[in-house]
Amino acid sequence: MSPHSTWQHPNSALYTDHYELTMLQAALHSGAAHRTSVFEVFTRRLPEGRRYGVVAGTGRLLEGLQHFRFETSQLDALAAAEVVDDATLDWLSRFRFTGNIWGYAEGEAYFPHSPILIVEGSFAEACILETYLLSVLNHDSAIASAASRMTGAAGSRPCIEMGSRRTQEESAVAAARAAIIGGFASTSNLEAGRRYGIPTVGTAAHSFTLLHDSEPEAFAAQVAALGKGTSLLVDTYDVERGVRNAVAAGGPDLGAVRLDSGDLVEQARWVRRLLDDLGNHQTRIVVTSDLDEYAIGLLASAPVDSYGVGTSLVTGSGAPTAGMVYKLVSRTDDHGAFVSVAKTATNKASVGGRKYALRRLDQSGTAVAEVIGVGRAPHDDGNDRPLLQQFVAEGEVLEDWTGPEAVRLAAERHRNSMAELPGSVMRLQRGEPAIPTEFEELP
Amino acid sequence: MSPHSTWQHPNSALYTDHYELTMLQAALHSGAAHRTSVFEVFTRRLPEGRRYGVVAGTGRLLEGLQHFRFETSQLDALAAAEVVDDATLDWLSRFRFTGNIWGYAEGEAYFPHSPILIVEGSFAEACILETYLLSVLNHDSAIASAASRMTGAAGSRPCIEMGSRRTQEESAVAAARAAIIGGFASTSNLEAGRRYGIPTVGTAAHSFTLLHDSEPEAFAAQVAALGKGTSLLVDTYDVERGVRNAVAAGGPDLGAVRLDSGDLVEQARWVRRLLDDLGNHQTRIVVTSDLDEYAIGLLASAPVDSYGVGTSLVTGSGAPTAGMVYKLVSRTDDHGAFVSVAKTATNKASVGGRKYALRRLDQSGTAVAEVIGVGRAPHDDGNDRPLLQQFVAEGEVLEDWTGPEAVRLAAERHRNSMAELPGSVMRLQRGEPAIPTEFEELP
Repeated sequence: MSPHSTWQHPNSALYTDHYELTMLQAALHSGAAHRTSVFEVFTRRLPEGRRYGVVAGTGRLLEGLQHFRFETSQLDALAAAEVVDDATLDWLSRFRFTGNIWGYAEGEAYFPHSPILIVEGSFAEACILETYLLSVLNHDSAIASAASRMTGAAGSRPCIEMGSRRTQEESAVAAARAAIIGGFASTSNLEAGRRYGIPTVGTAAHSFTLLHDSEPEAFAAQVAALGKGTSLLVDTYDVERGVRNAVAAGGPDLGAVRLDSGDLVEQARWVRRLLDDLGNHQTRIVVTSDLDEYAIGLLASAPVDSYGVGTSLVTGSGAPTAGMVYKLVSRTDDHGAFVSVAKTATNKASVGGRKYALRRLDQSGTAVAEVIGVGRAPHDDGNDRPLLQQFVAEGEVLEDWTGPEAVRLAAERHRNSMAELPGSVMRLQRGEPAIPTEFEELP
Repeated sequence: MSPHSTWQHPNSALYTDHYELTMLQAALHSGAAHRTSVFEVFTRRLPEGRRYGVVAGTGRLLEGLQHFRFETSQLDALAAAEVVDDATLDWLSRFRFTGNIWGYAEGEAYFPHSPILIVEGSFAEACILETYLLSVLNHDSAIASAASRMTGAAGSRPCIEMGSRRTQEESAVAAARAAIIGGFASTSNLEAGRRYGIPTVGTAAHSFTLLHDSEPEAFAAQVAALGKGTSLLVDTYDVERGVRNAVAAGGPDLGAVRLDSGDLVEQARWVRRLLDDLGNHQTRIVVTSDLDEYAIGLLASAPVDSYGVGTSLVTGSGAPTAGMVYKLVSRTDDHGAFVSVAKTATNKASVGGRKYALRRLDQSGTAVAEVIGVGRAPHDDGNDRPLLQQFVAEGEVLEDWTGPEAVRLAAERHRNSMAELPGSVMRLQRGEPAIPTEFEELP
């Protein structure tokens, strides 16, 4: 955890599905719980028409893993509800994850079947992490993936995350973090600011104007308290009058006006002309009304300076979950030898075996394929970039991957990962993944 | 908080957007912060084609309100990030909500413009609750609304909530609670079980079968550890062989078989015949593969005993947020007289004035309209049911509305609220709200 944060991570042990503990009980009973197992997080497909996904949440889950402990209050609750037997409770009371975890670093682009997280440990210890790991990765990656499309459409104009009110209060904090990884510049969420050192921004709502007896009085109050650099919300009554009142209140140094309704393209144009006519060439225009990546794309030609994005970001812009699954792909037998395993019934069949991954690059450094090695690392043709990083070694979380600095590094990694992909990755139109996924199996 | 729960509610003060505190600073500066204000939570429209919504989250937010305190660690974070000035930090350090809150009780159906929550207090104290209240209501109501459609489609067959892995870890707990309010029978989420006393269920995943050397060994291990009443997952390799292995392991008292892939309607039919042929007339069939309300409806004629619902539930079945807003509708002037206020610019205009609400019932007790009184209670024609309940009186949360018992009562209230609505409310096809919303304004 960051030394800058005063936030105490909650105990994460019961972010768990009932069946993980009943499986544990049954596997302890059969003895199979001690077989070394390899679980893999991946998605079978991207959300419809998406060309890539963006990994996020790894830093959060690594921090949460350190708080995945069955303490007295957790054990008492499980005992009271008769979820598992005493032998299982006893095992849980001593639980510490002692295995290894590898995966894609936060900010990295991913594709169908990319092995986003690989967990190796006894079946017992790896099995009980399923729901928690998936909750974090599925949510945070869905948000980062949407954020990335939005910041791609916004180009050099900054995007501000302001969707907290449209998602659960803790999801809001995680969404702000994921948005930053996907390229957003700041958030409205104060808790995200505290936990992750993310810049927070905000000025005023319509209620502030309505609270005062007139718009000029409200604007004067805001400028007096927050300075001329503030953003004034100009669409409570009449936008033209609002802009004139804003300039009267803030003078030539007024920071910005915010437009939160109406036809934003057309409005931004005449508001820009009006500001310029009034001499406010430096006053920026912030737009904030139900934006998504498509609306941002349509505003590219309008004289807008920044985008505030809410609902669409925190709901993943049509794909609120990344659809990742956690599957056992390999485990030892009675002799300690690894056996590849996979569901084979029709539908939802998986590829068994431990995975490795690299991004194949051409001579110019552009990605051409996601290569997944099954059972061993794929052949590296010299130009390629290995994708798996180690996050946990024999139960010890490698600290580099958590805390505010990890968020900053993930945002940088995301920019680099995007720059390496072919240009088609930025198209908003529905299409195929930007690069194909190729399996390289043992001969 | 329930005496049964050992869970400690986190501090909720920073689940807040930056602009609420800068508005507070500016309003403290102008003096307007002390004007008595009435804020209202409502939605302008239901998600496209939906006929009703279901209120959920009120119990959670009332509990959170008791933990909405700016303690040293929160104040230090705000000071370090220079969010507001010292005078505002000082005000925040002494903050306790001292106002009144009314609203729709959890489980109640709602419609466009239903005044779901009404917060009365100084502008300062009501303003800073905006994001937190909306986060809780928007998320929980979206889930309860989806849950209600699913349980409506399921009829008397129980629905099991199992979507934790497809949403953020704390959203998962809230979603399980909202699902129960919307009529679900149980959840897979252990933390929801602990906090809210919700029944939790679960048995085994494909990984448990794959861990063992054969399906019969896995089934024998599960039955040995969990008893014959357990549910065996029969589609890891081959469903027919799976069912035969399950019956061999559990005998005639086997609790259930679970189907998690494939054409469930057709599969349920022949699995039922096979179970009956094998003498397992009492063994139930649980289905769990990517179900939503439409899939559940299609399974009505299949011999299925219960539905496990995941992704679609926790993402609101296409509507992951309820779209509620928090608007200042009335506030006092310098003489202490209330003035109705509303944004009047084009788009997103609101109806000013304090709201009251009742559900108009016909002679037979069937709802015919949602009647919203503006500025005063609407005329009650004798048969009508008032909808506003008081949750907070002068800062004191009325305990009846929180804790596990409140969840149980909300589920019961939901059943009653649904029974009162016209039959068309249950149609899954897109349509208009089941009853119209009528405003009754002061003459």
